[in-house]
Amino acid sequence: MAGSTFGSYFRVTTWGESHGTSIGCIVDGCPAGLELGEADIQPMLDRRKPGQSQFTTQRPESDTVHILSGVFEGKTTGTPIAMEIANTSQRSADYSQIAKVYRPGHADYTFQQKYGFRDYRGGGRSSGRETAARVAAGAIAAKLLAQFGICVFAYSERIAGVSVDPEHFSREERDKNKLYMPDAGAAEEAAAAVEAARADTDSVGGIIGCFIDGLPAGLGEPVFDKFDAKLAQAILSIGAVKGFEIGEGFDAADLRGSIDNDGFENVDGVIRKTSDHSGGTLGGMSDGGQVYFRAAVKPTPSIAKQQRTVTTEGENVTISIHGRHDPVIVPRAVVVVESMAAITTSDLLLANASAKLSSLDKIYQR
Amino acid sequence: MAGSTFGSYFRVTTWGESHGTSIGCIVDGCPAGLELGEADIQPMLDRRKPGQSQFTTQRPESDTVHILSGVFEGKTTGTPIAMEIANTSQRSADYSQIAKVYRPGHADYTFQQKYGFRDYRGGGRSSGRETAARVAAGAIAAKLLAQFGICVFAYSERIAGVSVDPEHFSREERDKNKLYMPDAGAAEEAAAAVEAARADTDSVGGIIGCFIDGLPAGLGEPVFDKFDAKLAQAILSIGAVKGFEIGEGFDAADLRGSIDNDGFENVDGVIRKTSDHSGGTLGGMSDGGQVYFRAAVKPTPSIAKQQRTVTTEGENVTISIHGRHDPVIVPRAVVVVESMAAITTSDLLLANASAKLSSLDKIYQR
Amino acid sequence: MAGSTFGSYFRVTTWGESHGTSIGCIVDGCPAGLELGEADIQPMLDRRKPGQSQFTTQRPESDTVHILSGVFEGKTTGTPIAMEIANTSQRSADYSQIAKVYRPGHADYTFQQKYGFRDYRGGGRSSGRETAARVAAGAIAAKLLAQFGICVFAYSERIAGVSVDPEHFSREERDKNKLYMPDAGAAEEAAAAVEAARADTDSVGGIIGCFIDGLPAGLGEPVFDKFDAKLAQAILSIGAVKGFEIGEGFDAADLRGSIDNDGFENVDGVIRKTSDHSGGTLGGMSDGGQVYFRAAVKPTPSIAKQQRTVTTEGENVTISIHGRHDPVIVPRAVVVVESMAAITTSDLLLANASAKLSSLDKIYQR
Amino acid sequence: MAGSTFGSYFRVTTWGESHGTSIGCIVDGCPAGLELGEADIQPMLDRRKPGQSQFTTQRPESDTVHILSGVFEGKTTGTPIAMEIANTSQRSADYSQIAKVYRPGHADYTFQQKYGFRDYRGGGRSSGRETAARVAAGAIAAKLLAQFGICVFAYSERIAGVSVDPEHFSREERDKNKLYMPDAGAAEEAAAAVEAARADTDSVGGIIGCFIDGLPAGLGEPVFDKFDAKLAQAILSIGAVKGFEIGEGFDAADLRGSIDNDGFENVDGVIRKTSDHSGGTLGGMSDGGQVYFRAAVKPTPSIAKQQRTVTTEGENVTISIHGRHDPVIVPRAVVVVESMAAITTSDLLLANASAKLSSLDKIYQR
Repeated sequence: MAGSTFGSYFRVTTWGESHGTSIGCIVDGCPAGLELGEADIQPMLDRRKPGQSQFTTQRPESDTVHILSGVFEGKTTGTPIAMEIANTSQRSADYSQIAKVYRPGHADYTFQQKYGFRDYRGGGRSSGRETAARVAAGAIAAKLLAQFGICVFAYSERIAGVSVDPEHFSREERDKNKLYMPDAGAAEEAAAAVEAARADTDSVGGIIGCFIDGLPAGLGEPVFDKFDAKLAQAILSIGAVKGFEIGEGFDAADLRGSIDNDGFENVDGVIRKTSDHSGGTLGGMSDGGQVYFRAAVKPTPSIAKQQRTVTTEGENVTISIHGRHDPVIVPRAVVVVESMAAITTSDLLLANASAKLSSLDKIYQR
Repeated sequence: MAGSTFGSYFRVTTWGESHGTSIGCIVDGCPAGLELGEADIQPMLDRRKPGQSQFTTQRPESDTVHILSGVFEGKTTGTPIAMEIANTSQRSADYSQIAKVYRPGHADYTFQQKYGFRDYRGGGRSSGRETAARVAAGAIAAKLLAQFGICVFAYSERIAGVSVDPEHFSREERDKNKLYMPDAGAAEEAAAAVEAARADTDSVGGIIGCFIDGLPAGLGEPVFDKFDAKLAQAILSIGAVKGFEIGEGFDAADLRGSIDNDGFENVDGVIRKTSDHSGGTLGGMSDGGQVYFRAAVKPTPSIAKQQRTVTTEGENVTISIHGRHDPVIVPRAVVVVESMAAITTSDLLLANASAKLSSLDKIYQR
Repeated sequence: MAGSTFGSYFRVTTWGESHGTSIGCIVDGCPAGLELGEADIQPMLDRRKPGQSQFTTQRPESDTVHILSGVFEGKTTGTPIAMEIANTSQRSADYSQIAKVYRPGHADYTFQQKYGFRDYRGGGRSSGRETAARVAAGAIAAKLLAQFGICVFAYSERIAGVSVDPEHFSREERDKNKLYMPDAGAAEEAAAAVEAARADTDSVGGIIGCFIDGLPAGLGEPVFDKFDAKLAQAILSIGAVKGFEIGEGFDAADLRGSIDNDGFENVDGVIRKTSDHSGGTLGGMSDGGQVYFRAAVKPTPSIAKQQRTVTTEGENVTISIHGRHDPVIVPRAVVVVESMAAITTSDLLLANASAKLSSLDKIYQR
Repeated sequence: MAGSTFGSYFRVTTWGESHGTSIGCIVDGCPAGLELGEADIQPMLDRRKPGQSQFTTQRPESDTVHILSGVFEGKTTGTPIAMEIANTSQRSADYSQIAKVYRPGHADYTFQQKYGFRDYRGGGRSSGRETAARVAAGAIAAKLLAQFGICVFAYSERIAGVSVDPEHFSREERDKNKLYMPDAGAAEEAAAAVEAARADTDSVGGIIGCFIDGLPAGLGEPVFDKFDAKLAQAILSIGAVKGFEIGEGFDAADLRGSIDNDGFENVDGVIRKTSDHSGGTLGGMSDGGQVYFRAAVKPTPSIAKQQRTVTTEGENVTISIHGRHDPVIVPRAVVVVESMAAITTSDLLLANASAKLSSLDKIYQR
């Protein structure tokens, strides 16, 4: 039980259901002295906000965040930062239809089995809405990392079978299209494919890529809390994610060692890798290069197409799900991936602070 | 710091380096009353043991496990089970060559950066040898799961570009060939490919598949400790693993919702899914079906081929690594994946015991 | 860092400062299916509420609790229960005086040293106000325990040197006087002593006793998470508590073994202890008898009497603290002790659910 | 379950039973670069070692510690430090008498109830022998603390009703007498009292005092992981301890605020307290002064005097326990208290390393 907390040092606990009064989170362990206000958090929430385009649910939530504690005179105090986001458009009536049926691809059946009981309003705790709380926490993590020159950048790498062309990759472009693809041409093509799926009462999936730049070498804790292992947990904990890979990932399975290994070289006193197949970690610790990982996102399970299922009383039925659903989850999940990566990195940044005696020497005078 | 523990309820802590006197682990939280002896553990260790074939290091370790605590009169007592495995063939002299150089693809550089210092003997803590301790713990987890009809089965799904043919899949065959492939024909073909790589002073990688059968629905803790999320951490914490996917995994990215969703049906009073694209979890909880996941394993980084690197003093050099190295890690990693999956499942099985009041009612009389 | 969470299974995280907009907590891990509403929680909060008598601060807070998540159709869902209590009477102006001075007996100096910075409004995070969040969580724990016949009862055992007379001990009486003493005569005498201290611009302390009845034997986890050890942490985590003892406590130091040991006897098939010097635990586990422990509470540090201190800029000054302060903390801390004991017991009740294979057998069919 | 680990950052896990082949522990999270060898650990173990005098069990254990991992070329590597201590004098035959009876004052009954089963050989896991593993870990903690000028000093403050005279207090004297009392006269008097109890087939208890010197201000994590709260858990987790108090402790209950509060003063630029009633913490954080706490230790439960009890089959019997038992636990527990205090302090020292942004600035270059 009690799986609502992530991180040991920079510790995030989320709460709330799709159709309660509000959702939120607590960030405990954020170092004191970080300048922080709601203006630092809202922009990341706005990237996840519903209703921004035809590709996202039309549920009109403003997702306005309120900081309830942990900040005083514009700085973090070192005590828990509680944040709350109101649910203003619950419309529970929408969901009366699904109270007595298990939606395919959703957590309805498993919640019922685990708890003997479930909040059937819009998925309850398993709703994508929970991720807004993660993004609020992720915005704080991103601000903390920025102090040390660390930057996390996630983006839609592939949607409905259309991939970003590496030659047209542009970070600036990402925020200019509604699919958050860093390639205008690919975005246009993907948008057409998403539209086609929706016209067919169906949905599509895709892949999210993520870079972490500016990392010092050595983040990640051998042997179970490796950087990549904690990233994998963080990313797979996002509802629709079905896969995680770092560096060459699954392609590494078919490479030879002489290709997959990254050599080292000393260039003007700086040691760096001669290539980057590892994705920025070695032995589970950041290797000083750019971290690069990818997450596979399944197609939205809520579709209008008829599907077979059973009712909570065991009757075989078919269901067609109408309502305010995204035909593709990927664009809104981009900022969630970015947030979870920032949280994971912050946690390991703090964990690493006491890795060696010489670090403690700098803090505690001998 | 302190990343050597996995699990909250069934809690495994490993210790030891490649060239210390011994390695081992503690399993804390195993329920009392489980019949257990070294004979339950040794067979799984023997599957990982080096020197079994031309595909594995020739380092002659017997990997004999000793239970030091937690078992009395043939049963677990509920207290920590400590296990130790001697290192009998350290031959540190072999490693003097690498004391002053960062091996490509290994953790040498990152350990040095993190701790300012490293045990250069055979990788020290980052050696694959550490996984023997995980297998000892995994054998206990597997025995515990077996009490409830839960079985974990991992296997080599692809090696050096050669995949198991689903039509020839045979669980019995897995243990009959040295590559642990459940398809004799594929194993033969893959063996030839591994040999070719070795003849070329190179190494290969592959993919490990894993099934978990017999699971009750509802294991896994929303939202961060989802079954798939904890499995992902567990599997990525194994040294050479670069990717994890469950069910359709990365292929789900290109599916439409109407295909990827699994329907439900009631057949003679039993509710089951009409297909299995999810890989046995929904919303991060086991859905009552078979769990199926895959792990990508990179090629062995230790190769005799010349590679560029730098010394600890920053000199650019080339290195050719000779010694007792596996040309492919996959076969020996199969039982490690199986072990980590069993540990994860055991942990979540215990975690779930108090998920609902009605479960507690069965334990504590009202 | 990140010390705002207590418990591993029944996990409570509190947030909030004395003068923020609100305070609150998350209870994660409460089993699903427990009937719960604000009406179950408010009565315990009302026992802690300020302004009830001349012995407590006159700050007029209603301490009305709102459940924000985790409860659906009147029952807990197994997901995190978030609760919020508004701060309606912050009056920060009151505290401008203390912004630049370290109050004796308070955490002002240590917060400044630890975080380089502090919320000087009413103690911020170290304010007794934080304990309201604990009481809200404690009320849920108490309700959970009640399902299994377990009851926690705390009371003022001694105030300003006046102790409850065991011969006049009455549980019903506790809630009839403002000092929460289960002895009307002692309460009257103690009240006079408190008044005398206040008249002298001073404050007093006391001792809180606590019983836990109805416990099954075996709660508590050897060796570090013993029942008494976790209780001790829980109780010492309350601001003004300076000591904890169980059973004979410090008196045991002067007893002989033949007196301090409790024998066992079988009376009509029920095994019970022949005496109770242990306080209801043996080897850190509940022994089937009543748990009894005591907590020492220091006198309120905020007093009008002149005290020596220094300003944040290092100037030697004297300070006289006026405002809305309790002349004695003990009465309002009674329900906090009860809450922390209930939380601890709930946590260990859940932890114990998987202690033996035969318990799991009852939950998971073999 | 799984209560064998203490600490989150400096994390100690113990294993082993009184009559297994060996006992031991893992220290995970010790910073890399600390010079460490068995010679740093053995002296603390020797202080706990049995058979040193007529006041301790005559079981002849050498308690020789072996470091199995985590140290390379004389320094800690940052990876888990595993240590093992052989049990060389198990003599299980001694304990056949108690296999079928619950010893008063021991954990026999509660282990049986919790686990349905117990290792009856000498108390198994609940034996005082387990504390040897804590001392091994404590010695490492003490060495780490010494790097920063922090020193923990515990001693017998009272035995069999005889207290150390503060005017004769001498740290040097502590190690000169077998009772570890820092007052030769009191030690002599107490020794006579212990002898008298033993002659009467009985046992005695006492109080252990402990100082921690050289602490920086700010250690301890609000609100649940306060320094005093974690110390309380650590100390109550030692088998025979029945009470914990810090500073004035239970005496504070009867003081007035004007007496109990410690003022502050600036003397030549150094801020210090004008008195020390708090025991060195304020708001759960170290206040820059000396920490002082006390632990109440019950009399040894194993006595030759006849006691009433029941057999595992429920028969009422009397029992007289002969064998190798200490007539007083206090002297040997002194070093265990010192160890647990050192472990707690180390854990909070590491936890505090990331409390404020300015500390991280010193480690990670901006």
